[in-house]
Amino acid sequence: MNPLSSPLLADFYQFTMLQTYLEQEMQQIAVFELFVRKLPPGRNFLVAVGLEQVLEFLENLKFSDEELDWLATRFPPHVINYLEHFHFEGDVHAMPEGTIFFPNEPILRITAPLPQAQLVESRIINLMHFETLIASKATRSVLVAPDKLLVDFGMRRAHGAEAGLLASRASYLAGFSGTATVLAGALYDIPVYGTMAHSFIQAHSYESTAFEHFARSHPDNTILLIDTYDTEAAAVKVVILADKLKADKIRIKGVRLDSGDLAEFAINVRQILNKGGLEKAIIFASGNLDEYRLHDLLSSNVPIDGFGIGTALDISSDAPSLDCVYKLQEYAGKPRRKRSEGKATWPGRKQIYRSYGDDGCMAGDIVALEENDPQEGERLIQLVMRAGRRLRPNQSLHEMRHLTIANYRRLPVSMAALEPAPMYRVSISVALQALANQLDMEQVSLDQEISQTRQHIKQYVE
Amino acid sequence: MNPLSSPLLADFYQFTMLQTYLEQEMQQIAVFELFVRKLPPGRNFLVAVGLEQVLEFLENLKFSDEELDWLATRFPPHVINYLEHFHFEGDVHAMPEGTIFFPNEPILRITAPLPQAQLVESRIINLMHFETLIASKATRSVLVAPDKLLVDFGMRRAHGAEAGLLASRASYLAGFSGTATVLAGALYDIPVYGTMAHSFIQAHSYESTAFEHFARSHPDNTILLIDTYDTEAAAVKVVILADKLKADKIRIKGVRLDSGDLAEFAINVRQILNKGGLEKAIIFASGNLDEYRLHDLLSSNVPIDGFGIGTALDISSDAPSLDCVYKLQEYAGKPRRKRSEGKATWPGRKQIYRSYGDDGCMAGDIVALEENDPQEGERLIQLVMRAGRRLRPNQSLHEMRHLTIANYRRLPVSMAALEPAPMYRVSISVALQALANQLDMEQVSLDQEISQTRQHIKQYVE
Repeated sequence: MNPLSSPLLADFYQFTMLQTYLEQEMQQIAVFELFVRKLPPGRNFLVAVGLEQVLEFLENLKFSDEELDWLATRFPPHVINYLEHFHFEGDVHAMPEGTIFFPNEPILRITAPLPQAQLVESRIINLMHFETLIASKATRSVLVAPDKLLVDFGMRRAHGAEAGLLASRASYLAGFSGTATVLAGALYDIPVYGTMAHSFIQAHSYESTAFEHFARSHPDNTILLIDTYDTEAAAVKVVILADKLKADKIRIKGVRLDSGDLAEFAINVRQILNKGGLEKAIIFASGNLDEYRLHDLLSSNVPIDGFGIGTALDISSDAPSLDCVYKLQEYAGKPRRKRSEGKATWPGRKQIYRSYGDDGCMAGDIVALEENDPQEGERLIQLVMRAGRRLRPNQSLHEMRHLTIANYRRLPVSMAALEPAPMYRVSISVALQALANQLDMEQVSLDQEISQTRQHIKQYVE
Repeated sequence: MNPLSSPLLADFYQFTMLQTYLEQEMQQIAVFELFVRKLPPGRNFLVAVGLEQVLEFLENLKFSDEELDWLATRFPPHVINYLEHFHFEGDVHAMPEGTIFFPNEPILRITAPLPQAQLVESRIINLMHFETLIASKATRSVLVAPDKLLVDFGMRRAHGAEAGLLASRASYLAGFSGTATVLAGALYDIPVYGTMAHSFIQAHSYESTAFEHFARSHPDNTILLIDTYDTEAAAVKVVILADKLKADKIRIKGVRLDSGDLAEFAINVRQILNKGGLEKAIIFASGNLDEYRLHDLLSSNVPIDGFGIGTALDISSDAPSLDCVYKLQEYAGKPRRKRSEGKATWPGRKQIYRSYGDDGCMAGDIVALEENDPQEGERLIQLVMRAGRRLRPNQSLHEMRHLTIANYRRLPVSMAALEPAPMYRVSISVALQALANQLDMEQVSLDQEISQTRQHIKQYVE
């Protein structure tokens, strides 16, 4: 059982429901859409990421003998027979990765026989929710510091290995420069950064020896960590070492600060480096950083050239989850609508149309029905998988990253800021509203059932 | 490259440092300890979990050809040669899983040649940090609702698949009853729970048909979801259905509420079920729950028998990370101490001694040196791996769960509550304090180096 691709990455109810669907011959086409119900506090928009992993999961979905054996202890033979031949045969529509989106706009649609579409729910949410969460968080640092080196430092405190890896991918796609996580570099071809930890300095008797040892091993990657004992004294050691290394044509590339008052240290260290002839050496900062700290440092013109962002990025610390759901919108050709208070959904298969103003900036979206409801604007939802097979060769991560950064240029200025912006305009098309109303009217049979049952309640409640 | 066991699950600096260690022949024994610097707000203690996954990682650590090929594009041949034969040969000391612990108490110690001990840092933190985080969160629900059915519902919004799986394991070890995540059940032998989603109800034209279909498929697992349309009306349908199913000897086991005012609905639904002769049917609740909501519901005696806890559990929503670090405490036989302001560490290899009062409750801990510093109390740190091999067969998860629950009985009453308790007493032994002072004194050479360098600063700063 592969923990990252097993079809048992599902909630148990997906299998109990599946059994009933099979027994009741409920295998007609179901349409589920994935969307976020509301923005978390402090976010003006979200960035859709995770589609690649979803498509890979769906394309390779099958049950191993071991998985079937486990299920056979809980489900009858006809369920196991069905699962033995299971593969995903549905269609997937989605926004391209890196698309900016808003609440109630579907970012992914699954169209498949009901048991299939239901079975894949939990892992689809699990993948899209997390990567979208992290990309949306990373975007904020990219918007605050567009010209700085931004590196994902968060794997150690990410929630497990997959979170660390997908956080590297999502943040790179959102515009980060790279990651410290080696495996993310190897798997996704993301630039990898890193030099030394405090333990490296401490394992040496002298800090200056540690610096020199490192520089001699890594003449092209000499970013020296200078805050283990006395940051300014260490900056002077760097200057002295740079002089010494000139003879061997080794150049000090920069220094890293990881604690203390970053603003004060950066200013003093910059001065020391400059006076020591190391004007080109960069200052890289890390340690409890997030987009707010970046904003504070950069708006006071603190001379820092790059940032390592760890925990706050990989767990999206100020908003560690999204209210992300996967809802049935149609079954057997009939649109469905959940009417629960505050949780009502827009029924049917939907398309999003985005308009742009004369300045090129996003000016408003319309949520419309996919069919017979044409609107002005760019269509955001595309067919990406037909009958279980991906439609076209994937874009590279680098290409998607460029497109994502291009999308930021079309954000209205207020929305690109960290502060809350006026709500972006997302309208519901007349036809979609009419369909929702019509469904509510048609649900008379359901209402009659409820009101008949309510009569009975009197028997039970005085 | 296996994303969950690859030795590339490391920060890049672990490899750059390794190269220098090899080139400088720095392969003597290093001692690193893992500890948490401070409690997150709202926690009175933490519960150590994740050791099993760490030992498995260390025992199986080796480089594949593919991994070596990738590294060979960045590191010289002598590094690749070393890694080709790499396996972890160190010792591991740790607290047993399920041990209650406090800031500055090491929960894991690695004793290994420096390049080995350094290479495994990031994945060790990644595993121990997350499982400890989740077990510590789960414990709070178990303490609030010790006699209720508590089920992990959080996989879909956990941060990736591994987080979902490890959250099931950590919460079960901490006393939860089980999980909804099928793969966690299959991998760890955790009880698995689940019946139906709203989409199941919506795919049927009538709610009562959905209920009956499910009951006929799953006569032993009929927990019916009753909040899709009108919760109380649905409860009446359940009573009517129960009557109808008696002929077929099918018993309704219970109902689930997932939205609305859970207290009000539970009280009304209980009344309907009781008057309908379903006194034994349980009420299970889910939907945005955490330990605070459980506490509110149970302290008002709301008749709920079990809870599904999702997002808040799997992301530890109120404290999604711990200040968890892995620090060099000794190298080449010499204790090391990081002296940075506010981040000073206690040097050397340590043992924790725990005392209990006459009432059997925990009364205080002493952090002492492992050798020649005997103290009263229970020793919490044990040798669990010697020279890269585990010492004894693992305890089962079920056994660890029982021991964990037994540990809760020894918590002082105030610490077992949700509210902040007075700080638990953790003292530093006289010998450990003396060692720290002695190291500070001995670091005169380092201080001299710094003060000499500080002289130079004048050249650079006016």
